Parts: sequence; C-alpha cells; structure tokens
Amino acid sequence: MLFKLLKSTVIKKDEIRLQDEYVIIEQPFHILLNAVDLGASMILPHNLEEFAVGFLYAQGYIKNYNQIDSIRTCKDGSIFVYAKSAGVPKPKESIVTSGCGAGSIAASVIYNNEIKKVKDCELSINDCTKLIKETTIRGLELSSKTHGVHIAGFFSEGKLKAFAADIGRHNAINKVMGRLLIDETSTTGAIYTTGRLTSEMVAFAARLGIPILISRNAPSSLGIQIAEKYEMTLISYARPGRLNIFNRPDRITN
Amino acid sequence: MLFKLLKSTVIKKDEIRLQDEYVIIEQPFHILLNAVDLGASMILPHNLEEFAVGFLYAQGYIKNYNQIDSIRTCKDGSIFVYAKSAGVPKPKESIVTSGCGAGSIAASVIYNNEIKKVKDCELSINDCTKLIKETTIRGLELSSKTHGVHIAGFFSEGKLKAFAADIGRHNAINKVMGRLLIDETSTTGAIYTTGRLTSEMVAFAARLGIPILISRNAPSSLGIQIAEKYEMTLISYARPGRLNIFNRPDRITN
Repeated sequence: MLFKLLKSTVIKKDEIRLQDEYVIIEQPFHILLNAVDLGASMILPHNLEEFAVGFLYAQGYIKNYNQIDSIRTCKDGSIFVYAKSAGVPKPKESIVTSGCGAGSIAASVIYNNEIKKVKDCELSINDCTKLIKETTIRGLELSSKTHGVHIAGFFSEGKLKAFAADIGRHNAINKVMGRLLIDETSTTGAIYTTGRLTSEMVAFAARLGIPILISRNAPSSLGIQIAEKYEMTLISYARPGRLNIFNRPDRITN
Repeated sequence: MLFKLLKSTVIKKDEIRLQDEYVIIEQPFHILLNAVDLGASMILPHNLEEFAVGFLYAQGYIKNYNQIDSIRTCKDGSIFVYAKSAGVPKPKESIVTSGCGAGSIAASVIYNNEIKKVKDCELSINDCTKLIKETTIRGLELSSKTHGVHIAGFFSEGKLKAFAADIGRHNAINKVMGRLLIDETSTTGAIYTTGRLTSEMVAFAARLGIPILISRNAPSSLGIQIAEKYEMTLISYARPGRLNIFNRPDRITN
C-alpha cells in the first residue's frame, strides 16, 4: 500500500465540507548491514531492495552488487542485508544534515579525486522528451493522487531501464541507483527526476558515472559545481522539447 | 550573496540560445558545539545564527536559548557555538536518512512521551490568508528568481514574527525555530511553509509546541499521525482563503 484514503475538512470563506484525500505512506525502514543497524530512513515502502542497495552504494558501504549475499525485507520496517567485504566508510567530511537526505556524500565528492569523470554519450532532444514522458507516465497515478512524491527514471539505448518514486528526492535517486546496480545495467545514459539538482543529487549520479542528469526543477550552485568537476551534463527546468542546460550542452543532439 | 547569475544553454527543437539564470547558493556549513564538529549542513548561507540555534534545539543538544553563551559564524563555512549543559542526545532510534533532512527526531517523537501536547489557540481564515501572503511576499524575490528555495513563516498575535528561506524545507523550519528561540517568542501560533508536511517537519513543530502547521503542499501519512498524537492542527494545499485540514479543524475560525 503506497497511499491511503483519509478525510480532510475543506474550509473556504463561506463553505465547510468533508473531502476524500489520498495521502502518501511514509514509513521508517531500518537497514541492517551484517546485523548492524545503520539507522532508519523515512521512505515510501516501495522498491525496498533497490533502496537498500542504492543507499549502501551511495554511502560507500559497498562497491558493487556482487558483494551482497542476501537481502530480506520485513514489512514491519527492517531491511536485512548480508554482504561480503562491506566496510563502514570513513568520510573525509561528515555531513549531518543537508539540503535534504542522506548527506554524507556531497562534500567528499567535491573535495576528493577518487571518482572518475563520466563517460561520454549523446542524447537527442527526442530521446530526452521520451525519457521525461515515460518517467512521468510511470509515476502519474501516485503523483496525481497524493501530490507527495518525487519520481526518477534512467534511460539508455532508447529505453527506460529503471523507475522509482519516493517521498524524498534523494531516496528516489537511491532506488534507481539500486535497480541499475542489481541489473548491472551500464550507467552510460541519462537520469530524469522531479527533484532539484542540489549537491547530493549530482554527487550520487557522479558516483555511478551517469553522464546526463535532467530535472524538472532548479539546480543549486554546488550541484552545478559538482557537474562541472566531473564533466556531467546538467539540465534543469526540463519539459518535453525544451531543455535548460547548465553544463556540457554538447551531449544533447538535435 | 544568496544567488548568482550563470549562463545556461536553452535548447528547443529549432532553437538554441544562451540565457541568464539566477542560481541559488548552496554551501556546506559545519556546526561546532563547544569545539566539537557536529558535521556540516548544506544550506543557503542566510540566517546562519538562527539555523544553528534551531538545529541544536531540533536535534536535542539544547533545550533553550539561554544555554548558549556565544555564536560566531565564519563565512568560510563554520558556525562556532559555545553553550552550557549541552549534551549529545541519545535518540531512542537512530535515523540516518529520511524523506529529507536531519532525520534523528521523527521516530523518537512518535514513540516517546516526553513531548507535551500543544497549547490551544485559534486562527481566523483571514489571518491564515495574511500569514500565507506575508510569508510569500517576504520570499518572493528569492523564489521567483531561483525557483530553488522553500520558505517558512511564523505568525501569532496578528503578526509575522519569523521568516526564513532555505534550499531544504527542514532547514527553513529550523531557521524559523531558531528565530523564535532567540527572541523567546511564544510559540502559540501558526507556521506556514511551502514544504511538504512529512514526519520530521511535523515533529520539529511538535517539539516547539506550535499548534497550527500549514503547508502549500501535501502531507504524508506519518506527518498526519504525529499531528494527531500531539493534537496539532495540520493544514495542506493551503491557498489564500482555502484550507484543507487533516486534523483539529476546530482551531480555524471564520
């Protein structure tokens, strides 16, 4: 269950009435890595396995999906992951909060040189439109009913290869990352998301080596800075047939 | 400086041109409490003192502003806070990521009984409209130029008493909380924010004892659950003259 039906009281100046409303489900899920509780995330209970894999990768606990021996998700709010050679990362900078979400990545990505520059690829304006439309359609029921989710999709070789929705824009990206890692999909392609492109959003994509990052919404200064460092194409305010490109526009073709 | 002017490349099917864009500034700021680095937050460099106070309160390090002896903010990205009797909190549940932001509060608020129910107060529909309009006007330049901020305002006794903007919706609320704590303003009033009302947003307001929480956007199931537990009025999809109330509608008067 991803949403529930509740009653709300609608008040206008000369009117008061009850109305049915769909409300998005938010639930804490603990990730336990080799029986150690890493803490809980407040998420939409959907694509939990993808979330766990993407989260562990984004936070630096694992480097690939092959390290994972098993994942067991319990509806009561626990995801048990058993993995080989999974270590607690030592971030160069500890980030406790952020624009949003799991904030331990952004600054270390900016200031270290372990991450490689992304590979080159091209995407046509028509394929951008296809990515935006297909991701939007996949999320349409949830978005239009609850108004409470961010969606994200990954596109390569002419196809939408991963989709996710979550209350948090970082969680949605983590879920997409998890899907790509599980399927061992080449990350040479483009992500589209409704979330703003702040530092951590761009940093997650940089870690996976995704060359093109497209958002319906605004970028931040630090998001653009990270995109410049890794030579990623960063696109904001994207609509079908209209793109606003802040870095490396040469990857988008007619 | 809260935004900067950058060039973006706008691409449409038969058109390509450069365009000026204002981009919101995102910067890491470390909070050092009695010389201990609590980690960095990615924030809009604005109302830094309020942010530090609100953050330390929301995370349980301080219980009131009187504990704080001094705050010094350095533009390079550090906020030094010296405080009496400031302890590292022991959360009953550790939350590492979340829908968004500094996630160590939500679950412990839901499951413990230390927080009191909010005090009663009433707010007229006209005052709700005034709160929404005044908060929106205060944030208008930043919002309309950058499309990259959340805003929040606190209203009581007929007046807007605190305003803040930030890239993250949780940070904006933390800044408003900090302002109220610094001024020792009574928290018996209403907050309006553009951010969605997920668990942590409602939990922050619960900790401060704010009875009425109003958002332009959607609530989550857990946000509503916390509002019910503390008997808070939770309003979503708010527009001037139109409110959608999910709990305790009796506080809103004609």
